[in-house]
Amino acid sequence: MNISTILVVSPMYKELQTLIEKEVPQKNFRFIPEDGLTQNDLSWADALVSFNLKADYDYSHVKWVHSLGAGVDRFLYKKDWNEAVLLTRTICSFGQRIAEYCLSYILKDLQFHDVFQEQQGQKNWKQQTPRLVGNQKVLVYGTGEIGQMIAKVFSGLGVDVYGVSLSGQEKAYFKKVMKLDSHLSRLSEMNYIINTLPLTEKTEKVFNERIFSHLSNAGFINVGRGASVDEENLLQALSVNHVSFAVLDVFAQEPLPENNPFWSHPRILITPHISAVTTPNEGAACFLETLKNIEENKPLKNIVDIKKGY
Amino acid sequence: MNISTILVVSPMYKELQTLIEKEVPQKNFRFIPEDGLTQNDLSWADALVSFNLKADYDYSHVKWVHSLGAGVDRFLYKKDWNEAVLLTRTICSFGQRIAEYCLSYILKDLQFHDVFQEQQGQKNWKQQTPRLVGNQKVLVYGTGEIGQMIAKVFSGLGVDVYGVSLSGQEKAYFKKVMKLDSHLSRLSEMNYIINTLPLTEKTEKVFNERIFSHLSNAGFINVGRGASVDEENLLQALSVNHVSFAVLDVFAQEPLPENNPFWSHPRILITPHISAVTTPNEGAACFLETLKNIEENKPLKNIVDIKKGY
Repeated sequence: MNISTILVVSPMYKELQTLIEKEVPQKNFRFIPEDGLTQNDLSWADALVSFNLKADYDYSHVKWVHSLGAGVDRFLYKKDWNEAVLLTRTICSFGQRIAEYCLSYILKDLQFHDVFQEQQGQKNWKQQTPRLVGNQKVLVYGTGEIGQMIAKVFSGLGVDVYGVSLSGQEKAYFKKVMKLDSHLSRLSEMNYIINTLPLTEKTEKVFNERIFSHLSNAGFINVGRGASVDEENLLQALSVNHVSFAVLDVFAQEPLPENNPFWSHPRILITPHISAVTTPNEGAACFLETLKNIEENKPLKNIVDIKKGY
Repeated sequence: MNISTILVVSPMYKELQTLIEKEVPQKNFRFIPEDGLTQNDLSWADALVSFNLKADYDYSHVKWVHSLGAGVDRFLYKKDWNEAVLLTRTICSFGQRIAEYCLSYILKDLQFHDVFQEQQGQKNWKQQTPRLVGNQKVLVYGTGEIGQMIAKVFSGLGVDVYGVSLSGQEKAYFKKVMKLDSHLSRLSEMNYIINTLPLTEKTEKVFNERIFSHLSNAGFINVGRGASVDEENLLQALSVNHVSFAVLDVFAQEPLPENNPFWSHPRILITPHISAVTTPNEGAACFLETLKNIEENKPLKNIVDIKKGY
C-alpha cells in the first residue's frame, strides 16, 4: 500500500506532530484539531488518523483509517464502510490501564473504603474484616486484548476469572470462557461483572433485564461502551439488588448529560471515560508501528474485522 | 516439650473451641474471653494462646506462648520475658491481606477516586488520566513475611519495590534492600512508603522528622505499629507536603482516642486495625500446625527471636 499523505485529526495534534513527524520525514502530514477539519483535508489524504470525527465527512476514498482509540464504533457503528479501506486501531497499554481501573474499584469495595471513611467522619472505631480478592469470582465480557489483560492481572492475584464471548473460545488466564447466548446459569455465582465488549449491533443494550435478573448482588463495571447497557434496566437492577453497585466509565451519550439520573444515584460511580486514555506517546508509537508494518507488508495485529465491527 | 494443658484467651474463644478441640482431643483446654481470665487459669496452663492479655498477669512459668496476632509487641515491648519460654506467632494470610489493603489505597490515589467522586457530586465531566502502578516506586520498611508478600504482589504488577531492614539483606521480589541507617538519600524518589516493621526499641518513633524530611510528596501507609510513628512529626510532614497523604491502620493507642487530630485531618485516612485480622479458621489452623511441629520437634517457621523482638 502506498501512503504518502497522512491526515492526523486530534485534540492532541500538536503533541502528535512533535512525536511523529521527525520519525517519518519522507511523508507529507497535516496535523489539525477536530474542529479545524475540512472536506478538503480529507480529499487530500491517503490515510486518516483520528479518534473521532465531529461531523459526517466523506473519507471513503482514503486507503487507510487508523483509530487513535481502541474502540472503532465511531467509524463503524450504524455507518456505511467502504470495505476496500483498511481500518486499524490503537492497542497499547489499554489493557493494563483498564485492568488497574477495575482492580481499584473492586478493591475499594472489598476493603470497605466507604464504610471506614464514613466511620472516620463519626470518629467511630468499628472493625470489619476486608475480603480477599482471591475469594472472588469475576466475569469479564469480551476476551480480546483488554479482557485478556484484565484476566491476567486478576488471575495473578488468585481470582477465578470467567469470560463471555460470542464464540466461547477458551483463552489464556480465563478459568472458563462461555458463550454470550448460553452463560446465564452461571451468573448468580459471580461477585463482579466487567464489560469490555465493543459496540456492535450484537452488543447494543446486551446488558439488560435478561442478564441483570440473574445477578445476585454483583458489582457491575462498564469500561466497554455505554450503548451496550440498557440504562433503565440497570437502574431497576440496582433497586432490587441484583446489582449492588455500578462503576461506569462510558455512556451512551458523552459527556453524560446533566439530567441523567446516574449522576446522583448513591450506588453509581461515574468516571469521565478515563479508564483507557491514549496518551500522545502511546498513540504515536502505535501509529508508527502500524505504518511500518503496512509498508513492510507485515501482519497487523491491530487490524479491524469490518464485518465483526472490532 | 510436653504440653498437656492449653489456655486459649480470645474474644473469639467460642469459634476457636469449635475449631480446635475436636482436632486434638487428647489435650486439656480452657477457652475463655479476655475479661474472664484469672491468674488461676494461667497457673493451670502449660501453654497460653492469646492475642492480648488485658492486664499484667504472670505467665512466666508456662512453657509456650502462641500469639494469635503477627505482632508480639504486646508480649515483649517494654516487658520482661523469661527466655526459657517459647514464643511463636501467627503467620497465615496476613501478608496477602496487608498487600491488598496497601494496593487498594495506592490504586485509590493513582486512579483519582476522590477527584472523580467530587466531580460527580458537581455533575462535572472533566477528564484526568489515571497513573499506572507500574510507573511507581514503592518503599517497604520491613522485609519479613509481610513485607515480602507486599513486594511480591506489587512487583507482579510491574512496580519497582525497594525494601528497608536492619540488616539490608537482599530478599526476593525487592529490587533492592537498604539498611535502616543508610537509606535516606533514596527517599526523595519514592512515591509510596509502607511501614510493616514490628515494634521494638529500635523502631519506636522511627518515622520521625529524620525520615519524613527527605520525602517528596509521598503517600505514607502504616500497617506496622502506631508507636513507630512520631505523630507530631507526621502532621508536620503533611503540612509541608513531604507526605501527600497518610493511610493509618495502627495507632500508638487503640482504639484511636476521640481527641486525636488524625480523625479529622483531610489527608489522613483511618482504618480500625483491620488490615490483617486473624480469622478463627486461620488462627486455629496456625495454632494446630505449630502445636504439631512442637510435639514432633520440627523446625518452627513462626518462632520469635526474643532478643530481636520479632
